Amino acid sequence: MNPEDRAGFFARTQDLNLDDYLLLDYRFECSGDPELAAAHLCSEQSTAQWQRVGVDEDLRPQFAAKVLELEVIATQDEYSYPIPSTGNGRISVCQVRIAHPHGNFGPRLPNLLSAIVGEGPFFTPGIGLIRLEDIQFPETFLQHFQGPQFGIAGIRRALDAYDRPIFFGVIKPNIGLPPDAFADIAREAWLGGLDIAKDDEMLADPDWSPLAKRCASLGQVCREVAEQTGRPKWYLANITDEVDRLCDLHDVAVECGAGALLVNALPVGLSAVRMLRRHAQVPLMAHFPMIASFARLAHFGIHSRVLTRLQRLAGYDVVIMPGFGPRMMTPEQEVMDCVRACSEPMGPIKPCLPVPGGSDSAATLPGVYAKMGTVDFGFVPGRGVFAHPDGPHAGAASLLQAWAQIRGE
Amino acid sequence: MNPEDRAGFFARTQDLNLDDYLLLDYRFECSGDPELAAAHLCSEQSTAQWQRVGVDEDLRPQFAAKVLELEVIATQDEYSYPIPSTGNGRISVCQVRIAHPHGNFGPRLPNLLSAIVGEGPFFTPGIGLIRLEDIQFPETFLQHFQGPQFGIAGIRRALDAYDRPIFFGVIKPNIGLPPDAFADIAREAWLGGLDIAKDDEMLADPDWSPLAKRCASLGQVCREVAEQTGRPKWYLANITDEVDRLCDLHDVAVECGAGALLVNALPVGLSAVRMLRRHAQVPLMAHFPMIASFARLAHFGIHSRVLTRLQRLAGYDVVIMPGFGPRMMTPEQEVMDCVRACSEPMGPIKPCLPVPGGSDSAATLPGVYAKMGTVDFGFVPGRGVFAHPDGPHAGAASLLQAWAQIRGE
Repeated sequence: MNPEDRAGFFARTQDLNLDDYLLLDYRFECSGDPELAAAHLCSEQSTAQWQRVGVDEDLRPQFAAKVLELEVIATQDEYSYPIPSTGNGRISVCQVRIAHPHGNFGPRLPNLLSAIVGEGPFFTPGIGLIRLEDIQFPETFLQHFQGPQFGIAGIRRALDAYDRPIFFGVIKPNIGLPPDAFADIAREAWLGGLDIAKDDEMLADPDWSPLAKRCASLGQVCREVAEQTGRPKWYLANITDEVDRLCDLHDVAVECGAGALLVNALPVGLSAVRMLRRHAQVPLMAHFPMIASFARLAHFGIHSRVLTRLQRLAGYDVVIMPGFGPRMMTPEQEVMDCVRACSEPMGPIKPCLPVPGGSDSAATLPGVYAKMGTVDFGFVPGRGVFAHPDGPHAGAASLLQAWAQIRGE
Repeated sequence: MNPEDRAGFFARTQDLNLDDYLLLDYRFECSGDPELAAAHLCSEQSTAQWQRVGVDEDLRPQFAAKVLELEVIATQDEYSYPIPSTGNGRISVCQVRIAHPHGNFGPRLPNLLSAIVGEGPFFTPGIGLIRLEDIQFPETFLQHFQGPQFGIAGIRRALDAYDRPIFFGVIKPNIGLPPDAFADIAREAWLGGLDIAKDDEMLADPDWSPLAKRCASLGQVCREVAEQTGRPKWYLANITDEVDRLCDLHDVAVECGAGALLVNALPVGLSAVRMLRRHAQVPLMAHFPMIASFARLAHFGIHSRVLTRLQRLAGYDVVIMPGFGPRMMTPEQEVMDCVRACSEPMGPIKPCLPVPGGSDSAATLPGVYAKMGTVDFGFVPGRGVFAHPDGPHAGAASLLQAWAQIRGE
């Protein structure tokens, strides 16, 4: 790419109509000239070949992704992780902000993903390692999406739960119990004080616990406990399944009394979630399988905050994410980036409830609350409630006790 | 986990009915005892808590994932990539084969993914880095899937193309041309000898090139060229879009004369592909956006061969994958692993056509053919055809000339 060609992939912010562009922040490591690498990064994710042979045209003004800012933040002798065949010489570590014209594909999640984390960014000449760090959408793009139906405010109203976290519990044993036994332990935990007893993200619609039968059992018990305690209670059913079953399973689960539904975002795909959102009568909650496979490492893949934003955009009311503590192997900064992505301004899209999870119990509640600095979160122990030595009732009660203590009550 | 508990996550192959299990090969790096880490790896991906408090039961015989083989292949001072909070001490590099009971979730792709690359494997205590290296399915699982409808043999029959690779070309400029101009350059390439002129994986259904209009133009031209040359020709339309549009776009495209359809596997989700497969009247072709984000690194994420197997299982007739050469940053061994995954025995599931792609042209055909060692592959240049200095007709013809030369004709 000669210098003149390269210039077609650079622009000044003030020269663009930002309504037409997504803003993408990548960190990349390259061998060779960083400006050339950044130009290729734009070219590969948009107008790879911007003119026909023998035709005097340039498709880039409208269709090219364009570098707005490029900074070399470090140089080093080697790539941060060993990778195959990436050229020689010193490595430049760069941050780049790119304006990507969303009119190239329109307000469609699969096409968005194909452009921003597809072949373009991950196979750009000269760039051996790259991570999509963040994304911003203009309102012209956001207005095509529904986002969360209920959001934090809607969930609080429905659960009549204010000025405190929402207390979830993952019913355990998660795999192997028949519906009635499963309902019995959920009953105890609801009676102990849980707002929401939930299916594990791996418990779906197997023959030893068919979703319809499980929802019938748990829906019935949930109604009984709500009546008995005078408190709203939700059973959160996991309807993660093949995408052409999602709407039917929604109907079955809601009919039986599920108050909210869990759908594993990446395994079904964000687009399937968006489809379900159009149909949904109850809040949708995301779980995070697969995300770590591309979000764990600091210098390669996709920052989990990007996935949080996309889950919110797809219509989730609640996003469960890897939380604090060594077991979840997620830096505190990253957890907080994801938490903030749930509530940061996003045009007409409502905030969703963040649920940082992982090996929690009454003992970890004060620390999580301190880090969150707000009551707007969900707390989701599993074994911390259901393996409590005195049983699930005591496990759930221990959360409320811990909260009362935090509040000095 | 005490030694007795640990034993519940180990088994001997001869003691299991392998019809009931998927076989999963992981490579992992752990601090601490490798046997304990492997037991946790099984526990976390299946029966995390295998008994109720106060109940004398053990759900593991039926529901636990179980270690069949464990080998420590190296020890080292540090993890291969720096990661947050992973304990102290020497790191063991391990290979493990796990039998995972598929009855935990049934023959459903989203639930399969949630188990094998979900929270379990990526958040196992003690395991800082892990990669799913391979998967094998028993026929009892495979029999629930359709797999490819046409497969390699069906594609050859329809294209009347035997004893040679199938010649694809990615129409370029990929983004920005209106349908009629796009059809004009496709015409040249078909006349030059391409079997299949295809949309770029980023070209979908935008207002400047609506799919229906594009398919009408290219379908018409494709029929004209087929008649003129007496050779079957396909237009491969990219219908990647929101999942609830896939079947409708299939109908529109096929009605207009698209001979095959491209769908980006991970962006729409494998389950949506499986849904489309049930509906499809023409071959389905996969492209690879997103896969590199978890498959690039040797010691973390998911080996791309696993994705090849899953794409075949979901029903793709053709799988485009990162091919040979430095630009694609994929070791030759890995390309060949993916190629083999297209044709290795898989019960009732037909072979699919591998298309290793990336910056190809007539000049790279001999090398690719030599590496493949078979004619059963697709060859997919983009700029190698459509940026040929003498135009797309000459670009396409150059492929056939290169092939004739290889065959000494």
